[in-house]
Amino acid sequence: MAVPFAKSHFLWSFLSIFLHILAVFLLLLTTYVSAHTFSDIGSEDVDSSRRNDLYSEILRDEALARLNELGKVSDADGYLERTFMSAASLRAGNLIRCWMEDAGLTTWFDHMGNLHGRFEGMNRSAETLLIGSHLDTVVDAGIFDGSLGIISALSALKVLKSNGMLAKLKRPVEVIAFSDEEGVRFQSTFLGSAAIAGILPVSALQISDKSGVTVQDSLKENSLGITEESLLQLKYDSKSVWGYVEVHIEQGPLLEWVGFPLGVVKGIAGQTRLKVVVKGSQGHAGTVPMSLRQDPMAAAAELIVLLERLCKNPKDFLSYDDQCNDSTIESLSSSLVCTVGEISTWPSASNVIPGQVTFTVDIRAMDDMGREAVLYELSNQMYQICDRRSVSCIVESKHDAKAVVCDSELSSQLKFAANVALKRMTGEIQDEVPILMSGAGHDAMAMSHLSKVGMLFVRCRGGISHSPAEHVLDDDVWAAGLAIVAFLETHL
Amino acid sequence: MAVPFAKSHFLWSFLSIFLHILAVFLLLLTTYVSAHTFSDIGSEDVDSSRRNDLYSEILRDEALARLNELGKVSDADGYLERTFMSAASLRAGNLIRCWMEDAGLTTWFDHMGNLHGRFEGMNRSAETLLIGSHLDTVVDAGIFDGSLGIISALSALKVLKSNGMLAKLKRPVEVIAFSDEEGVRFQSTFLGSAAIAGILPVSALQISDKSGVTVQDSLKENSLGITEESLLQLKYDSKSVWGYVEVHIEQGPLLEWVGFPLGVVKGIAGQTRLKVVVKGSQGHAGTVPMSLRQDPMAAAAELIVLLERLCKNPKDFLSYDDQCNDSTIESLSSSLVCTVGEISTWPSASNVIPGQVTFTVDIRAMDDMGREAVLYELSNQMYQICDRRSVSCIVESKHDAKAVVCDSELSSQLKFAANVALKRMTGEIQDEVPILMSGAGHDAMAMSHLSKVGMLFVRCRGGISHSPAEHVLDDDVWAAGLAIVAFLETHL
Repeated sequence: MAVPFAKSHFLWSFLSIFLHILAVFLLLLTTYVSAHTFSDIGSEDVDSSRRNDLYSEILRDEALARLNELGKVSDADGYLERTFMSAASLRAGNLIRCWMEDAGLTTWFDHMGNLHGRFEGMNRSAETLLIGSHLDTVVDAGIFDGSLGIISALSALKVLKSNGMLAKLKRPVEVIAFSDEEGVRFQSTFLGSAAIAGILPVSALQISDKSGVTVQDSLKENSLGITEESLLQLKYDSKSVWGYVEVHIEQGPLLEWVGFPLGVVKGIAGQTRLKVVVKGSQGHAGTVPMSLRQDPMAAAAELIVLLERLCKNPKDFLSYDDQCNDSTIESLSSSLVCTVGEISTWPSASNVIPGQVTFTVDIRAMDDMGREAVLYELSNQMYQICDRRSVSCIVESKHDAKAVVCDSELSSQLKFAANVALKRMTGEIQDEVPILMSGAGHDAMAMSHLSKVGMLFVRCRGGISHSPAEHVLDDDVWAAGLAIVAFLETHL
Repeated sequence: MAVPFAKSHFLWSFLSIFLHILAVFLLLLTTYVSAHTFSDIGSEDVDSSRRNDLYSEILRDEALARLNELGKVSDADGYLERTFMSAASLRAGNLIRCWMEDAGLTTWFDHMGNLHGRFEGMNRSAETLLIGSHLDTVVDAGIFDGSLGIISALSALKVLKSNGMLAKLKRPVEVIAFSDEEGVRFQSTFLGSAAIAGILPVSALQISDKSGVTVQDSLKENSLGITEESLLQLKYDSKSVWGYVEVHIEQGPLLEWVGFPLGVVKGIAGQTRLKVVVKGSQGHAGTVPMSLRQDPMAAAAELIVLLERLCKNPKDFLSYDDQCNDSTIESLSSSLVCTVGEISTWPSASNVIPGQVTFTVDIRAMDDMGREAVLYELSNQMYQICDRRSVSCIVESKHDAKAVVCDSELSSQLKFAANVALKRMTGEIQDEVPILMSGAGHDAMAMSHLSKVGMLFVRCRGGISHSPAEHVLDDDVWAAGLAIVAFLETHL
């Protein structure tokens, strides 16, 4: 039985890989980008006479030094880890606060640990432009994820301060370093930005980490007392906000493939995070016959294999109906991604059949209806497998965020600013910067509930992120800062 | 593709369950036991007039009180956990030491943390009878596994002391409470008994636990300095040992099914423990397309599903040759068990595709050649899966123990003693006690390298062990102690 199955499986895998590669190439075609045009941007050979005019010392050299310094602020030895309200997060916040003040901003921490730096501009009652990203990281992180968005905004504002333009901003500009985007500690993302957007339920204060410490406790430990009332007061009045802009590394391979340092984000994939608990019958590894076992580990393995098959080939699993038409299936085929990042057994001994296995599932797709259809089918098939194996399964939704469409006007302005920046760097009029979708979630998802949002992506090597191998070229950091300078200039 | 596979899988699972149930019934037939004969042993209704003659206060009531007391000595709150050289293990050792002295024994801890209690008898130069079991436990353990063997030996010796027969033993008797059988802390079983049997390599002193503490460090922390020389000196001279006897709960369902409180062990299954490390490409859960992933978690899940299929249906995977004949396949079909008890991912965040997944594999079978054939086939297929998925796999053997055949003469003596005990309790001549194989490993495996070994199994409820639900009837504890009394009487 094994061999025919293996052959069949191989053929399907091969077909799946072929279709996915085809889908990725089709996606690339839609960016209307000539790949070779920008192949020289990102090299280290920008005309040296142009460096001083383009503030390379602030936007490139100092920004890189700050990114590297921030990348050393970690709770762990030997790798980067900063989680919500950890000691390293507080040190990182204090460091960024100094850099905010260096850029001429007035600073404060709010009750959810977000760090704010604000400049009032010429009209303090005008709608505020918010620029932000997050200061927390995953475990074993790279140094650009989150930090680049904060540093590039501060560098750009420092440039305006240095050339005397800061005071001429026609509206307040506020940079926010959000306290939690990754959700590592509390398994609930956007604690920081969701509070400001007013979509964080007060019950979130009682979520516990693995040590039993609640969000509220963790804030209190750091002298940031928060109550349900003060959480609700964190929400910004949407009328006071002009829009929200975020610079972030792409965390995917497209910009590198098309040879562009910057891209404008059209939208952000929706995502669901599940916690799956499988309970079976705990027992001695040597004495319970295979046929009498109710082994939650073997069941969990089968569920994870199912998850991968479904997400690689959604069209094999979903039936066409009102909720799942051709375009949904097509969107899923090119964008659906599913990940099991954490798994644990109880009691976790090599000679004990576990009594319980717990694992996480992360599902993302551009099409919300398609993601719902995948979730429905996945849950159904999971429960069937658990029933067949006489184990119990609980599939619990921990996080659900709809896909976000970025504001078209704001995106046009960011595109214009990126083109200006690249023209200044190369001295040539360039093709238009690519328009991308984001598979990763960002604070802009939460902020979209408050105001229009726009995002600028920065190329990263090999599309690698959430890894110490994450890397951005020095000149791409510069390009990002220069684009924000150009964007801010439209608010003078 | 999903549905035909699921149907086919279901049919094979059904066939597998049918064959296994058939195999278990065939095994039962070979015990030549009439199930109903002993159905009243184990009830709480033993004739009260016979209680005093049969030392129920020592062998039953006090033994149970001691088992319960020992079951509370734990390193964890809310569940039982005692690992090698932990604080609770030391407290448990000191408690058992008091009970050894109460039974008239001279006591000492050796350099590997084993606790010894010895009575010289009438001829201190005669070969010593060793009786033992382990004082460590798994995580979330039951109170009988290991402890019952120590307590029943001490209770039996206390009976001989109380009736004045202890001094008449014609050979030294030594009870050993071994420091490590489960291997939870250092992933290497039998640290205690293997040292005494002289089969523990000196390199074992340098094995580290999850905190980086070595075996040697852990002993030193508890004032038990050990060097390579003193480890080698722990080995007993095989000429000085008459034999080794161990009482243990069955940890399987057979004695309960045939309605017998005691059984004699014919042999112990061989076992292999593997550590499997799967390395892939770490990345962001939202941005790496499914077709471009090298996901070690999905690969590990496929490996675990393969392991289960192979161990449920070995005949579908193994080819018949010189090493794998009909009897080997038949033995595997009725005895092969495989377990994944521990699994972890790195960096273990729900929104990160893991870079590495590590899991344990525990494989046991009565037939050593069959187990080797399973290992060979499993490794081959694992490496094929990893190659196909472009992830790297390392399959490392952490422990390997051949199956052990118990000494036939010693087994006959234990069988006689068990029959005498059961006759004393029921007042009737009983059918012969069942002869069983042990799927679980025991210190007797290590001790078989030193001397002949024999084991007595005690019925446990539902065959459940390595679980807080582990349970032995009060009268079965009594029967075990009485059998050891009867066995010791043959050494008067």
